[in-house]
Amino acid sequence: MQFELTSEYLEKLRDAIEEKNAAYLNEQLHELYAPDIAEIINLLRVTEAAYIYELLDDETAPKVLLELDDDTRERLLATFSSKQIAEQIDNMDSDDAADVISELPQNIQEEVLSHIEDLDQASDIAELINYEEGTAGSLMAKELVSVYGFETVTACIEEIRRQTDNVDVMYAVYVVDNNERLIGMLSLKKLIISHPLARIEEIQDPDIQYVKTSTTSEEIAEIMQKYDLVVLPVVDQFGRLVGRITIDDIVDVITEAAEESIQRMSGISDDVDTNDHLWRLSRARIPWLLVGMCGGIVGSRIIGTYENHLKIHPEMAFFIPLIGAMGGNVGVQSSAIIVQGLANNTLLGDNITSKLFKELGVGIINGTICSGLIWGYALLIENWKLAATVSVALFTVILCASFLGTFVPLTMNRFKINPALATGPFVTTLNDIIGITIYFFVGRVLYTSF
Amino acid sequence: MQFELTSEYLEKLRDAIEEKNAAYLNEQLHELYAPDIAEIINLLRVTEAAYIYELLDDETAPKVLLELDDDTRERLLATFSSKQIAEQIDNMDSDDAADVISELPQNIQEEVLSHIEDLDQASDIAELINYEEGTAGSLMAKELVSVYGFETVTACIEEIRRQTDNVDVMYAVYVVDNNERLIGMLSLKKLIISHPLARIEEIQDPDIQYVKTSTTSEEIAEIMQKYDLVVLPVVDQFGRLVGRITIDDIVDVITEAAEESIQRMSGISDDVDTNDHLWRLSRARIPWLLVGMCGGIVGSRIIGTYENHLKIHPEMAFFIPLIGAMGGNVGVQSSAIIVQGLANNTLLGDNITSKLFKELGVGIINGTICSGLIWGYALLIENWKLAATVSVALFTVILCASFLGTFVPLTMNRFKINPALATGPFVTTLNDIIGITIYFFVGRVLYTSF
Repeated sequence: MQFELTSEYLEKLRDAIEEKNAAYLNEQLHELYAPDIAEIINLLRVTEAAYIYELLDDETAPKVLLELDDDTRERLLATFSSKQIAEQIDNMDSDDAADVISELPQNIQEEVLSHIEDLDQASDIAELINYEEGTAGSLMAKELVSVYGFETVTACIEEIRRQTDNVDVMYAVYVVDNNERLIGMLSLKKLIISHPLARIEEIQDPDIQYVKTSTTSEEIAEIMQKYDLVVLPVVDQFGRLVGRITIDDIVDVITEAAEESIQRMSGISDDVDTNDHLWRLSRARIPWLLVGMCGGIVGSRIIGTYENHLKIHPEMAFFIPLIGAMGGNVGVQSSAIIVQGLANNTLLGDNITSKLFKELGVGIINGTICSGLIWGYALLIENWKLAATVSVALFTVILCASFLGTFVPLTMNRFKINPALATGPFVTTLNDIIGITIYFFVGRVLYTSF
Repeated sequence: MQFELTSEYLEKLRDAIEEKNAAYLNEQLHELYAPDIAEIINLLRVTEAAYIYELLDDETAPKVLLELDDDTRERLLATFSSKQIAEQIDNMDSDDAADVISELPQNIQEEVLSHIEDLDQASDIAELINYEEGTAGSLMAKELVSVYGFETVTACIEEIRRQTDNVDVMYAVYVVDNNERLIGMLSLKKLIISHPLARIEEIQDPDIQYVKTSTTSEEIAEIMQKYDLVVLPVVDQFGRLVGRITIDDIVDVITEAAEESIQRMSGISDDVDTNDHLWRLSRARIPWLLVGMCGGIVGSRIIGTYENHLKIHPEMAFFIPLIGAMGGNVGVQSSAIIVQGLANNTLLGDNITSKLFKELGVGIINGTICSGLIWGYALLIENWKLAATVSVALFTVILCASFLGTFVPLTMNRFKINPALATGPFVTTLNDIIGITIYFFVGRVLYTSF
């Protein structure tokens, strides 16, 4: 039942585009939903994309436009006139229209707005694009159905019939007082099953969640997820109802936040994907590579101070990679668990000290296992001094890495830096340096003492 | 407006529990929503939790139970009799009740079911717990409102009044034929604004998304996210409507999948969090540490073959950490981008070759920058042979790591292994070994040739 895009199918469509076989393409497009068509267009060249888009009917085209990747949409819209863009966004929900417009260059934004025929829509969009990105104001839509508390169920249903043209999907009716301040909510189910003459304020639910226009998208995601909400009303600083946020936009926020965490953890400093330009991909990745390089150079200076020792005992060099790798791995594990705990709100106050101790406990257990194994191996293959050096250093490195992997993200979080950064190259580089220092220090002490 | 749990507040509640100050606690609990109370109970000892839970009213208690962490719920329910558990789940939605019951030991499951007073609820739960975990069957709820296509709007509203007791939140009415097969959907909005005598099959939307009971949670998440759905009907193998899945359960699926990716990337092999027991945390982390150890041992063998070379040129050891770290970092960056592309469906067929070339392009750019810088540094501090060795090796390592970081997750994905595994310790370990091999090989060639 679900559409699965294959490269063969894509090839067929491309051939049809090249042959300008509109009949075949129309037939194919008619069978697909807007998100599927968008998936196809994302993979086409811009001239091909424009040809396909031209074929779509007036109802489907704006939906497809919305579902496109940002980059694809930008390139496609660059081939449109301001008037054509205005036609596309005239029938979108106000939040979607504002999203599309806010991606355009400033001078074109105004041109497009001036071409929108529905003046209410134009003023809604103009309002929405002024809110700061990542706030409730920028995420909300203006389309909603609201009624006054003193109205009856029958009047309310009339009101819904009148207002409903604007609202595609409706989950609830909002109840406001004479000053347009939000005072409650009424589910459609309640509306349907209530007596026609009942007054709204008697059957409404006054105990509802809402956010202000300035609330951040992370907070909104937390609230909607925690309280299992599908739609959340937004009020201005005077408590007046100004919009509503639906869960589909928040699912996108949650997905993007997860992607961002993974990118930060992997040492990618900008939001990029495989379709981005070579230069952009390179630029997003070079900063943390340079940090890693600096770490490597510091490491080389530390080992450099043991040059004479290495001349006599070159076997000390054998386990440098092992010590570095294990410090990095343990650090990443520890910080991943802390970052997750921070995201889930399961870390609290004095709780933190107990987490640190638990983490050290895990370090002691796994450190003992690993250093025991390496002790046996090195004793078998090398000499006892090296075996002792490696196993003592490994145990110490694992403990240190456990501690740092816990401590660094907690500290970053306190200073409002994204702790996911700590799980990646930063902790790895730090633990590399510390590992090497411990390893050579222990080595010299052991070799010179016995 | 939003509840923020502080450690001071938690301490106050704990003191009140110790003093058995029910009046104070009741007052506090009354002001909180169920998810907030659950957040508090998650942080309490089991005896404290049981005391608080006892104080909750009949409506709030089951909601709190649902919102608890799995571990906390398990420990709390262990203090309950089967009859007490049955009372708690009698009024839950069938999917939630099935979730709670399926976590109990097998013998207790049957006891609890036998104590449930509502026989419909008991049989619904018994049906749901038989579906395989992670499928639509296990995620769906039985509570829904369905009507026959031949009915009128008025009859349908009557039907909703009758069926609605079971359904807490309702987004749509499902339309079925005489054999209970799903044929369409009717939004409540449409129902409200349609003529009372209109026939359902004339106003319904026949073109709807649905899934089978065997559809996996990942596919469901993809469908609901792609098509912006709030609720999705589930049919059996004969196309009969058997349940519905709501977006809040799917948001949890999405969040858990993201957490799992992050854990796999960090070398944690089991789903753990900071509240888990020390042994469980250690066990989840040791497997990849042992893989890293094996990598380190292989590295030590490779360096071991250059022992005599190291005696004469101990400075070769200085840059071992740098080479290892850079290989790891580049590999993690490359694979993170590929894993993300796989998750987003932006990688398709022959597309893959072009991604590989682009990745190599990024490798060449960043490799040139990094090896250029290290060449300058090493020339300044060490000698030209070492400078040449490090920079040639670093460039080669960065290219290799870019290639492997792209190739490994793609291959894993083809063999249906979670590609996130590749982004973590696996690629790091592999690149460590390859890096060392290249570095010493280049070093020996250069040192012996000139």
